[in-house]
Amino acid sequence: MADFDGYRGNSLEFLRRSEAGVGDVVEVGTEWGVITGTLVPRYQYDDDRHIVLKLSSGYNVGLSIDRLKGLTRKSSGERPAFVPPPSPPPSPKEELPRVAILGTGGTIASRVDYRTGAVHPAISSEELYALIPELSEVARIEPQIIFSVYSENIEPENWSRIAERVSEAVAGGVDGVVITHGTDTLGYTAAALTFALQDVPLPVILTAAQRSSDRPSSDAVLNLVGAVSVAGYASFSGVYVAMHEGESDARVALHLGTRVRKNHTSARDAFKSVGVSPAAFWSRREGLEIKLEGLPQRRRGANFSPKPRFEARVALMKFFPSMPITLLDSLANSGTRGVVIEGTGLGHVNSRSIPFFRRFIEHGGLACMTSQCINGRVNMNVYDTGRDLLSAGVIPLEDMLAETALAKAMWVLANSNSIEEARSMMRASLCGEITERTLR
Amino acid sequence: MADFDGYRGNSLEFLRRSEAGVGDVVEVGTEWGVITGTLVPRYQYDDDRHIVLKLSSGYNVGLSIDRLKGLTRKSSGERPAFVPPPSPPPSPKEELPRVAILGTGGTIASRVDYRTGAVHPAISSEELYALIPELSEVARIEPQIIFSVYSENIEPENWSRIAERVSEAVAGGVDGVVITHGTDTLGYTAAALTFALQDVPLPVILTAAQRSSDRPSSDAVLNLVGAVSVAGYASFSGVYVAMHEGESDARVALHLGTRVRKNHTSARDAFKSVGVSPAAFWSRREGLEIKLEGLPQRRRGANFSPKPRFEARVALMKFFPSMPITLLDSLANSGTRGVVIEGTGLGHVNSRSIPFFRRFIEHGGLACMTSQCINGRVNMNVYDTGRDLLSAGVIPLEDMLAETALAKAMWVLANSNSIEEARSMMRASLCGEITERTLR
Repeated sequence: MADFDGYRGNSLEFLRRSEAGVGDVVEVGTEWGVITGTLVPRYQYDDDRHIVLKLSSGYNVGLSIDRLKGLTRKSSGERPAFVPPPSPPPSPKEELPRVAILGTGGTIASRVDYRTGAVHPAISSEELYALIPELSEVARIEPQIIFSVYSENIEPENWSRIAERVSEAVAGGVDGVVITHGTDTLGYTAAALTFALQDVPLPVILTAAQRSSDRPSSDAVLNLVGAVSVAGYASFSGVYVAMHEGESDARVALHLGTRVRKNHTSARDAFKSVGVSPAAFWSRREGLEIKLEGLPQRRRGANFSPKPRFEARVALMKFFPSMPITLLDSLANSGTRGVVIEGTGLGHVNSRSIPFFRRFIEHGGLACMTSQCINGRVNMNVYDTGRDLLSAGVIPLEDMLAETALAKAMWVLANSNSIEEARSMMRASLCGEITERTLR
Repeated sequence: MADFDGYRGNSLEFLRRSEAGVGDVVEVGTEWGVITGTLVPRYQYDDDRHIVLKLSSGYNVGLSIDRLKGLTRKSSGERPAFVPPPSPPPSPKEELPRVAILGTGGTIASRVDYRTGAVHPAISSEELYALIPELSEVARIEPQIIFSVYSENIEPENWSRIAERVSEAVAGGVDGVVITHGTDTLGYTAAALTFALQDVPLPVILTAAQRSSDRPSSDAVLNLVGAVSVAGYASFSGVYVAMHEGESDARVALHLGTRVRKNHTSARDAFKSVGVSPAAFWSRREGLEIKLEGLPQRRRGANFSPKPRFEARVALMKFFPSMPITLLDSLANSGTRGVVIEGTGLGHVNSRSIPFFRRFIEHGGLACMTSQCINGRVNMNVYDTGRDLLSAGVIPLEDMLAETALAKAMWVLANSNSIEEARSMMRASLCGEITERTLR
């Protein structure tokens, strides 16, 4: 007999018509072709317009039944191990810290099929406690969905909205803030929020999951429990990314928001601090272990003025052999106010691009240099290509990550009174985005 | 008394006028401002229009005396340890293998001040034996300068010329080929030559140096001796990059030309194989240690038809939050025939870019997806952004490096008879640029 765990309404009716149930291998027609997978259960709070298939790759796909061209049951499979948690969920104790959880879309704190694009109803704290009962031992969580956007669709205006909601939560007296986000552009958002939320008196912890929560190898629960624990209890403040670290299933790394990069498409430990150690590690067994000195301290009742505005007209350009001048010119012609270059090596582009930069800067543009090497530091004094770029006014960004440089340039252009001030702010290390030179 | 090691003619006269000699700390006026450094010796074969300063950073700069606005001697320093080697140089034995060394510019096999932009006279084997006497024990080298170009200025037409010269050297009966190149775009060139020189019957070894040869930590000699040894003696054929590996000063890694990336701006072990092991290691003590199975074998008298043509109208675009459609449109409008995207995560761009790709591909363009994560593999079947891109005709390049993908797309467009054939060639692994899927 077919098992319809979590399916209801329209999607239940859709499955009944095809006599397919949870655990069965099914074939569905989509606009991208035929997809085969195992029908997996849904959470009780999900909508009734999607079904979820686990593919042989181990990934789940959520599919809108309105867009499907039929479903055929191929064979009955094992019922997946996942069982939706029982209701009613546990309740947290009154003495626990208050942690706001702001959802933006992404694998964590959404439900299994978060990527369907369907608009989910706002998740409640009861739902989260039901999904992850452990959370009720850690904090009194206050979840809200700010928006539900695939992280590749996040724009600077989304950063502004997140920053505003964080400051509302801070004003509302929470002890810490967790932001859940898709992994794709998590590094960009973390950098942007670091600049927008300078001097935030609490920990603001971005987190995500590389594997959805019904997979045995999922990092969703560990990352969220780690993020909520750090947000609620850490002695430091500031913006960090909390993600699974290393080979074990036990440890979460806390990366500075300006120094973190997604370095693997699918591994759980994809996020790495570049050029510095992670700020801290967290595990259930060891608690919080701080690795960087000089982190800002958590403050009570402190003044805090977020600066949530960004200038979106900034481009990130990776230099490549034969890069055409027309590409750069099109930026200038479309009103771009800033360009961050990922140059080669110590910070170079080809000679015929240099006149573009001279013109762009003469007309008030902001042009900055990072390196596509990712590791190391630009040094534009060594070779004459670099010196010519410096002479044109291109700003060397030392060891700043290109993604951080983009977010910073967008923030600086919206938070400075003149191009001179903007250039000067780009050169300074405001939030750990540039580290001191060391010998290597 | 001033010491003028290696300076002669105009540059000697210039120094005499300022009473500054080798080892002195001097200040020079340049168009980029005042530079302070220690005057270092020059090789006896260098031109007489440049002086070379060692900066406090440890880097050398070569400066054209014609562009200098004066020189002031600040203090006398220690004479640097470097002493130009004595003449006459040793001669190699007749039974040693013949190795062509093709110079393109860059730190290695040029002289100390290679980056001045001055056109050097062709380097002779006598000069190289004089600089690195050890080479005379390894091979009968046949050096020639193809061109002298900073590697950030290398264009697809340079790749074509290198490929042609390699095939001339092969036809001329050498036992192996070494190509010296600047480090900045070495990875791009290595990938390009791998496609152009498929089925080359000999080892073709690209090498470079991250630190110039007068610095105590220079990797120039090790890399060149390693490259010449492998080119002369290895049992395998194909295109590889030979660069310093690890912490010691003893070992050179041989990276597949399609799998290598410059991952650090200045470290000697900046070059890394991504997604695979280096093909082999070489050291003076251990000789050659092969790490990858299935390398093509060296062949005698084999047919070999290089395919040296490239289509330069291909762009590499790194996706970033708020990437404007105008940027993509400007590519299409300027006649671009192919676009390689560095998408986020598993291979995504924002939704509003997708219609561009649909139009670009409908009009016969080649669009391919890689990931800015660098490690891991694109998988566009998981989320609907990816599926929409697939449905538009964007080609997922699995775990191909973006730099390799650019070179391959340029090669494929010049070596296929139809866009369908080009697309099919992009999907196939021709030279190890895509590896088999493995679980992680």
